[in-house]
Amino acid sequence: MKEFKVGIIGFGTVGAGVASCLLKNADVIAKRTGITPVLAGIADLDIETDRGVVVPKELLTTDASAMIRNVDVVVELIGGTTIAKKFILEALNAGKSVVTANKALLAEHGEELFAAAEKNNADLYYEASVGGGIPIIKGLREGFSGNRISRMYGILNGTCNYILTRMEKEEIDFAPVLKDAQQLGYAEANPSLDIDGFDTAHKASILASLAYGKWLGMDPVYVQGIRDITLADIKNADELGYKIKLLAIIKQSEQGEVEVRVHPAMIPKTTQLAAISGVFNGVMVTGDYVGDTLFYGRGAGREATASAVVGDIVDIGRNIVNKAARRIPGFMEGIQYSRIKPMDEVDSRYYLRVQVLDVPGVLEKVAGILSKNGISISSMLQREGQKHSNVTMLIITHCTKEKAIRSAIAEINGLPDVRNSVNLIRIEDI
Amino acid sequence: MKEFKVGIIGFGTVGAGVASCLLKNADVIAKRTGITPVLAGIADLDIETDRGVVVPKELLTTDASAMIRNVDVVVELIGGTTIAKKFILEALNAGKSVVTANKALLAEHGEELFAAAEKNNADLYYEASVGGGIPIIKGLREGFSGNRISRMYGILNGTCNYILTRMEKEEIDFAPVLKDAQQLGYAEANPSLDIDGFDTAHKASILASLAYGKWLGMDPVYVQGIRDITLADIKNADELGYKIKLLAIIKQSEQGEVEVRVHPAMIPKTTQLAAISGVFNGVMVTGDYVGDTLFYGRGAGREATASAVVGDIVDIGRNIVNKAARRIPGFMEGIQYSRIKPMDEVDSRYYLRVQVLDVPGVLEKVAGILSKNGISISSMLQREGQKHSNVTMLIITHCTKEKAIRSAIAEINGLPDVRNSVNLIRIEDI
Repeated sequence: MKEFKVGIIGFGTVGAGVASCLLKNADVIAKRTGITPVLAGIADLDIETDRGVVVPKELLTTDASAMIRNVDVVVELIGGTTIAKKFILEALNAGKSVVTANKALLAEHGEELFAAAEKNNADLYYEASVGGGIPIIKGLREGFSGNRISRMYGILNGTCNYILTRMEKEEIDFAPVLKDAQQLGYAEANPSLDIDGFDTAHKASILASLAYGKWLGMDPVYVQGIRDITLADIKNADELGYKIKLLAIIKQSEQGEVEVRVHPAMIPKTTQLAAISGVFNGVMVTGDYVGDTLFYGRGAGREATASAVVGDIVDIGRNIVNKAARRIPGFMEGIQYSRIKPMDEVDSRYYLRVQVLDVPGVLEKVAGILSKNGISISSMLQREGQKHSNVTMLIITHCTKEKAIRSAIAEINGLPDVRNSVNLIRIEDI
Repeated sequence: MKEFKVGIIGFGTVGAGVASCLLKNADVIAKRTGITPVLAGIADLDIETDRGVVVPKELLTTDASAMIRNVDVVVELIGGTTIAKKFILEALNAGKSVVTANKALLAEHGEELFAAAEKNNADLYYEASVGGGIPIIKGLREGFSGNRISRMYGILNGTCNYILTRMEKEEIDFAPVLKDAQQLGYAEANPSLDIDGFDTAHKASILASLAYGKWLGMDPVYVQGIRDITLADIKNADELGYKIKLLAIIKQSEQGEVEVRVHPAMIPKTTQLAAISGVFNGVMVTGDYVGDTLFYGRGAGREATASAVVGDIVDIGRNIVNKAARRIPGFMEGIQYSRIKPMDEVDSRYYLRVQVLDVPGVLEKVAGILSKNGISISSMLQREGQKHSNVTMLIITHCTKEKAIRSAIAEINGLPDVRNSVNLIRIEDI
């Protein structure tokens, strides 16, 4: 039985889950794979607090650097982009392979980290960074290696999906659901990273990097969160046959242009993606040979994330015992796109909610602005507003460029009879 | 750029798809992985027929053995369990790694083939054997290597799922849908392998072998197909909140006992599995750390199967250039179950459809037989039959042992007032 030593940096929720999995399932891992990951150390500044996992005392240390020197694989579970980066680089530069779940760090500094891994002939694996326990990185990087990836759709943030699902099922508006989610621990006290779409954007950047061969970083990723989604939007979407999800959308055109965007989107409610509710995640991947596929599972949480981290540990262990480090490169071999498409050039259908004063001629003005911008209307519905002097216009457009819709919305917002800013939700017919 | 040579045996539908993928996507594979699979030969008895793929003439040969000697990876796509086995063993014994999509061969002779691979320090990969393009083998073998797998549910046969979906959507009975499916090419002229459940059983055997560490073969797999499912059953299921699917069910009890069975099952219609319709496949895997996951995609067809085969080819190529053959063992390292549970001992809820003569006392007799066998009834509905002298009784039981229900059914079938054999469908609440 070939053994290799594993050290964990960061004894928080996920760290405790990984320790638990390595200790509890060591036998089944050994039986299946012929190798045994041995938990050799856990480094944290706080080694006193009970994490609900029984760990031999002598494994705990406050000296991460000493632990790094003593193990074969380093698991970074601190989070954040400063100390985590320091330790990952320290490990890689010592020739140790690294497993991380740190999506923010990879999205922002992936290029530097992967260069360090390559230079030191070490592996840097990150299955847990996207989709929790779902083996989407492995699927994309290995399972679909024969495919050109034409598009990916991801529901990648459990907090947002939980909030949108509760708004829909319980018919409550955004603010009270968020508050309740915070009390229940499903949303952070500062929820911005999740609900403003940044967490999903980090994951979208990683998926796009994997699919198209270069670490993209965050600059090319369009990000918009779910704060402006109202219960009215969800109900309107339902009537039109859609559900609203915070979606990561990654597409490559036949000309090789790539778009990466994160925003709420209306998707047909009969699709498998639309059925993903609560804290679950899902990723749809379409390849030229494999066609449409979907991966679904728990996107976060102690156990699910631990499952992905341990999968990576075992994979690296297989490389170690076979002397096959760098068997899988960091996807920096060759760029497979012509350029990143700016958001202005993206094509979409749009849902617009416009609240106007109930006076003659306003519909004509709105329609005129859309027409002037070359936008054709697919359907229109006018509703009484909450105040009887207001009406709500719902407009669904045909496919048009983002630039045109933004220009039209700016003009509509400038009309004297418009009460609030136009609410826009993009429609993805999938 | 590291190159390795690939030879295909069997230039049928999937063979043509694999050739097409290797030729068309060689650039993207090279850019992503840093290695290049070079199509070096295609062997078939018929090298004249046009397969719709442009292949350099000099690659085609009728001499598979000569081609095997000349390549690094052999792709077996002949099908069947005789010649295919001969060529796979020939390749492995020559130290060549092998990719196959041949589920029947693996299920029946996996142990022998994997022993040959081990002896010759070669790899034998088979992603395409289960779930077409879905990377379920990779997910289970590598992504979930840290988990104890408590259960798997698979919709693994596109033909059966297509038939059941059309029966449900178009309200047509089994026989005419099968006939139409045969005319459309979705079912074979001899449809038994699919509709009698054997194809699904081959795949179930492979999944269970992977999850529990020993090639099981077909003997322990209970198999029942979809021939006896009627439109009435599908409608009744719908009223009760279920859909009927041909399901592969693999479970391990906490005591380590494993059950592997394939049969039609009623599953709650709100589940993700129930939403898998038409020719699509899906596999739900539950692990102790990852929780519930679902993989979904095209389960068959030229392109989807080619995607899986090429993924394996690239994986083996990575092993070749890194001298890491046998990096992943054939899952024969250690058995992880105590015993295979006989079907008699399986616990389930049951739906029984009983057609009886409309005479006094028959309900009492049926209820008495169930009670005598220790089976308690969850719900019961009596309906007028097609002839007014008949009535149909629908009975849903609480959880009970298969042995008890079979004994009860035998007794019920013996009652003079029962018109046809009782139709039984197991209920999986998932």
